[in-house]
Formats: sequence, C-alpha cells, structure tokens
Amino acid sequence: MDWKNRFAQRTTLMKRSTVREILKLTAQPDVISFAGGLPAPEFFPVARVQQAADVVINERGVEALQYSTTEGMPELRQLIADRLGFEVSIDNVLMTTGSQQGLDLTARIMMDEGDPIVIENPSYVGMLMALRSYDLEYIPVPTDGDGAIIDALEPLLQRNPKLVYIVPNFQNPSGTTLSLPRRKQLVELLAKYDIPLVEDNPYGELRYSGEPLPTLLELDAQRSGGIESGHVIYVGTFSKILTPGLRLGWVVAASPVIDKLVQAKQSVDLHTSTLDQFIAYETAKDGFLEEHIPQLCDVYRERRDVMLAAMERYFPEGVTWSKPDGGLFLMVTMPEYLDALELLDEAVRHKVAFVPGADFHVDGSGANTFRVNFSNAQPDRIEEGIRRLGALLHEAVAQVR
Amino acid sequence: MDWKNRFAQRTTLMKRSTVREILKLTAQPDVISFAGGLPAPEFFPVARVQQAADVVINERGVEALQYSTTEGMPELRQLIADRLGFEVSIDNVLMTTGSQQGLDLTARIMMDEGDPIVIENPSYVGMLMALRSYDLEYIPVPTDGDGAIIDALEPLLQRNPKLVYIVPNFQNPSGTTLSLPRRKQLVELLAKYDIPLVEDNPYGELRYSGEPLPTLLELDAQRSGGIESGHVIYVGTFSKILTPGLRLGWVVAASPVIDKLVQAKQSVDLHTSTLDQFIAYETAKDGFLEEHIPQLCDVYRERRDVMLAAMERYFPEGVTWSKPDGGLFLMVTMPEYLDALELLDEAVRHKVAFVPGADFHVDGSGANTFRVNFSNAQPDRIEEGIRRLGALLHEAVAQVR
Repeated sequence: MDWKNRFAQRTTLMKRSTVREILKLTAQPDVISFAGGLPAPEFFPVARVQQAADVVINERGVEALQYSTTEGMPELRQLIADRLGFEVSIDNVLMTTGSQQGLDLTARIMMDEGDPIVIENPSYVGMLMALRSYDLEYIPVPTDGDGAIIDALEPLLQRNPKLVYIVPNFQNPSGTTLSLPRRKQLVELLAKYDIPLVEDNPYGELRYSGEPLPTLLELDAQRSGGIESGHVIYVGTFSKILTPGLRLGWVVAASPVIDKLVQAKQSVDLHTSTLDQFIAYETAKDGFLEEHIPQLCDVYRERRDVMLAAMERYFPEGVTWSKPDGGLFLMVTMPEYLDALELLDEAVRHKVAFVPGADFHVDGSGANTFRVNFSNAQPDRIEEGIRRLGALLHEAVAQVR
Repeated sequence: MDWKNRFAQRTTLMKRSTVREILKLTAQPDVISFAGGLPAPEFFPVARVQQAADVVINERGVEALQYSTTEGMPELRQLIADRLGFEVSIDNVLMTTGSQQGLDLTARIMMDEGDPIVIENPSYVGMLMALRSYDLEYIPVPTDGDGAIIDALEPLLQRNPKLVYIVPNFQNPSGTTLSLPRRKQLVELLAKYDIPLVEDNPYGELRYSGEPLPTLLELDAQRSGGIESGHVIYVGTFSKILTPGLRLGWVVAASPVIDKLVQAKQSVDLHTSTLDQFIAYETAKDGFLEEHIPQLCDVYRERRDVMLAAMERYFPEGVTWSKPDGGLFLMVTMPEYLDALELLDEAVRHKVAFVPGADFHVDGSGANTFRVNFSNAQPDRIEEGIRRLGALLHEAVAQVR
C-alpha cells in the first residue's frame, strides 16, 4: 500500500471547508456573493497601516523582523487587555495567529478523543472544522432569537461536558445575540458545574443597534473574583475591526490556561508574526480603533438595513430571517420542504450566492436554512442580489404549492 | 476538582521549551550567549523589507490585508518552487506559519498515538517539542560526522516507522551534513520500504565550505519519477535567509499530502499572514536572495572560522567539536565524566551561555555535549566567549584529574 494512504486516524476525519469551496466556486465578479464572511475591503485603513508599517520598520526594524516571544508583543497584549474595559493583566493575554488558532489551541489543550462539548446549534463552521480532528461528542444546545437557551443548557451540563462553546454576539451563522439575563444565568451555571466556556467574540464591537452587553469573560470574572478564578476562555481578533490579512487574534484566560496554550503554541508555530504585531500596535495605539470602528459600524448598519428592507420587499411569505443587532451575518429559514443546497444551484445560475445552513448544524437539521453576509457588498448589489433570491424563493414556494 | 486541572492527556505531555527558558535566563547584554539560534540581526535587510512593504501596501494594499487562500500566495509559491532548481509545481507547495508549522502539521496528518518515528540522535529540539503531544515511539538512528548512519537505518526501517525525520544540512544541533553517498542510499531505502521522510532544511543555503549537495527531495523525485510518486515531505523557511519575524515557511510534497496539510491548516489558522507573504515576495522576486545569501554566508563563515580557531586555542585536550560546513551551530563533546548542565551554571556566572545537549538526545545520552551558535555574535565576542568557556573547561577537566 502506498504510504500516502497511511495518514493518521484524525486525518481521515478532516475535510476541506465547504464554505471555502463555495467561496471559490462563486468568486466571479458577476456573481453577487453573500457567501463570504469578509469585511468590506473598501474600508480597510490601508493608509493608516502603511504609515504604521513605515514607522515600525524605520524605528524598530530589526526588532520587528526578529524572532519574538510565544506570548506576543507586550505592548499589544497590554492594549488588548486595556480595551476589554475591566481588570485584565497581560499575563492573561496570548497573541495567536488569527482567532482560529485560539480555537484550535484551546481544543488541543482541553479535549481528548470522544470528550463531550456543548455547542450552539447552529454553530460557527470554522470551529466545527477545527474540532473534527479531535473526534468529539457534540452536545447541541438549542437556540432562539436570544441566543442559546440557557434553561435547556443546565441538564446538558449534568452530562459533564469538557467545554462549552458560545459565540455570544451576532452569532455566525444565526446573527442572534445572547441576552443579558441569559449571560448572567450562564456564568452562574459555569460556576455551579465548574465547566469552562470558550467565548468566541469576533464581532462584539460591530454593534449597529441596541445596547452593548458585557462579555461573559467580564461577568464571570466579576462573579468569580477575577479572571484567575473564572471559567471563560475568551477568543478575540483584529480580523473584523482592523484587517484579516495580518492574522492576529488573542486568547484571554486564567494564567494556568495561558501557560498551557503557550506550550502548545511553541510546538505549532513558535510565535505569531512579529512584524504584524508591531504594525497592529502602531496602528491602534493612539485610539485609531475607537475612530475606525464607529465608521465601520455606520457602513455595515446601512448594509444590514438595506438587506432587511429588501428581504421584507422581495421574500415570499413562509420565509423568515433573523434581524441581527450587529456582526456580518443573518440567517434565512425557508419552509421545511425547501432545501438550501438545491436553491444554491439555482442561485448560482442567477449569479447570486450564499452558504447553505446544513453544515452549521450538528444534528442533521438546517437543510432549509442559509447564511447571508451583508457586510461585503455595496447597497445596490445587496438590493439586486436579494431581489434575485426573492424571485427564486417565490418560484420554489410556488412549485410546491 | 478545579477545571484547570482537567487538561487533555496530550497537554500533560507538553512542556515549555528548555532552549527558550535558557534564552530568557541568559538574555542580558553582558552575557555572551551562544545559546540562541538567531540569525545576525545586523544583517537583516531592513531597508529592502521597508521598500517592499511600501510597494506592496501602496500597490496592492487591499489584497495584502484581506483574507487569502490556505495554500498561500501563488507568486510566492512559484518563486519557492523555482528556487528548488528542478521540476516542482506550485500545487506541491504550501505556505506555512514558519517551518515549525510545517513540522507540526506533518506530524498531525501522519502520526497516531504510539506510532514509531525514526529520528536522528541528537535531533532538532523544536521537532522533539512538536512531537511530544503526539506521544510517539522514537527510534533513534545513530549519527557520525557524515550525518545519520544509513547502514544502521535499514534494520530500523524494518520496524515499520510511520516517518523518518532528518535535517540533512548543517544539522541542529550537531552541525554535520549527510554525505552524498548516504543521501543516495537513503532515498533507495525509502522506496524499498515505502516510508515517507521529512527533510527539514532551514540552513541548506547557508553553506560556507564544500560543495552544495542535492536535496533528498530532488534525489528522491529523480529516483521515483517525480515528486508525485516520491517519499519526501520537504520543509523550508525564510527565517534564516531573509528574516524570522515574518514567520514564513513552506512544505513541498506530493499533492495528496499537500491536500491533507491544507485541510489541517484550515482548521489551525486558516492561512498564513497575507501581508507577510506579499512583503516576502516583493523582497525576493528580483533575485534579492541570490545577492543577500552570499553576503550572509561571508559573515557567518568568518564567525564560524573565528570560533573554530578560538576553540583550537582555548579548549583543553579531551574536548572535541564538530566542524560544520554551514548553518548556525556546532556541537561540543566533553569527556564522559563532565555534565553540560553543571558547566552552564558555572558559565552563566562567567557571563557566557550555550545549550546543554541532553534535550536534543532521545535516548538519555548527550549529558556531556552542548550546542554552540556562532552566527549571532560579533567575532570579538565569539573570541572572548570561547576564551571564557575554555578556561571553565580547563578547570573542570583539571578538577577531575
């Protein structure tokens, strides 16, 4: 037998990301694609990054190009700690190569084969991909318009999951946000059952309506007397608030957890790009994000509103969708008898694309749902794309009747 | 029990890199440290990188800051393929976040718990660290001044190892190079036993004396009728020939292997920094490396020669050392009755540092050896550092007599 057929057991569990496959298939300029999760590139702060790169290489070039510590650039970790808005030490912050690495490293240090993990249903497909090779037992917690249903979570925690994974703000794919009462209820349960939770928060700062809510990290630290005695492993990223190409994310957690993550990271990539960390720090250090994020929010708010209005106008009765207060995504639910994968075939022929929802679900449901991104297309393209989708949905509904 | 004591089994096998701990302990300006593996920062092409960053962000800023493919920037992969000097397609090249990631991903797709792996004794400690969490069975192959002893390898291959791991050029820590006859013999054995080999080649282009030798990748491809039917998983890096802070490495292998590595990489960090890849490509695309590497070689050759001459002058009889034709390291062997860890204590008090050899060995041997880096210090500091070490060695030898 050829050695190329003797991969490790975990490798046989891996697969290529279907989202990425769909992105590739639909990456043509004439297709209006709602499939991606990309920030709007026309609002990347290119000039500011250019200026930062210039300063950094001029003033600290040798340092910015040399190996650095696994933990990451101290000034950048301090900035991240400060922006969390409550007492966090840089010893609680690890820089990672994108937040995806934070998710993978957390699984790597926490999860043995077959371990149970509680996960929202539907959930972020990147996390589901990362978890595949760890061969876990998924315990799906049902969700509604206020996020994970915490009353339904308590009996699941009695099954001793090793970890709970939650995207509390403007969840990918559903667009929903975990309400404040549920957040408080959730951190109580974490303490009661002594179970750690991964709070994956890439979109938290992209809020377009409603009141900002405290992170689970903060609520849990308040309740537990500080991060060191808390239960939350928080994962953040610059991808959605600065630019994704720098691959800069971070984990915030109790220092014994950071210590294990550092050991794991030493063995997987030694450290995150020194230059990218220096550039991000130089870009952000004088309050740039505090100016930039509200501008992004204005742009994305308009796009969300255009999309919601277009759906109202063009989508047939029987089709529903979430109304997110922020983030990049919303989720459409069609009547049970329709299949989003079949609709996608038709949609691509009409030059419009989205991501079918089945892959986000861990229990085989969701075939009648799909995820739509509203941040990456101009308003007139959003209007036209939703008009096309609406026509297809009308047809599909009519055919069945 | 606190959840922070319930890490995964693999986590209990991890440990912090002792080399990094020693580096931290000895990172004081008054210590002459031969402990690191750092390229000489005074020869980083800072101005060239600055110019490249400027061009890239000016001309392709949006693209350079956006998400990109897992496989990596096509132009950069093409450049890497071209520089290998024989027929390699970009489909055989995957960009990684440093070569450390190439090593970890390869272990990840290939190795199940308990699988045997043939490894040089001594071997690169970063690979040994990466392998810890995979809980493997090491099969050490003995080495001499010509690298791994291939006659001793054949009986080991009969034990069906899943992988062979070799650093053929100027090995870390020994400084030795696998001879051409042994390379030819080795690729024959790989074919005969159908066993894959990781060729870890960070230093191959840093040759200061002797004739360049073909890579195992090339010899194996010639023998097997091309990379697609070959056995070598080749790992390279810009860290030693450009700058390490960009964290840019690559893997070259048959496309089914690259395909699995891509799937693994999608789940661990999505892709390597877009900006860093663009900068590296812009820096290297017009033959810059072909000018820069010979200059680096001139500097490092002098430092190697200064160190070898100083050892000749200052080290006592009974102490031997390798005479590398390139790379960054050489290895010192003391009489059996001396312990490098004890010597390090004494050395640090005399403001000079190195890395004890025990951690590079997989069979408990090597306590009387230590690794010395010659690339990172100026010639006068090398001379002074070796003088101090020589005095300590004379003392240690005299004490026992």
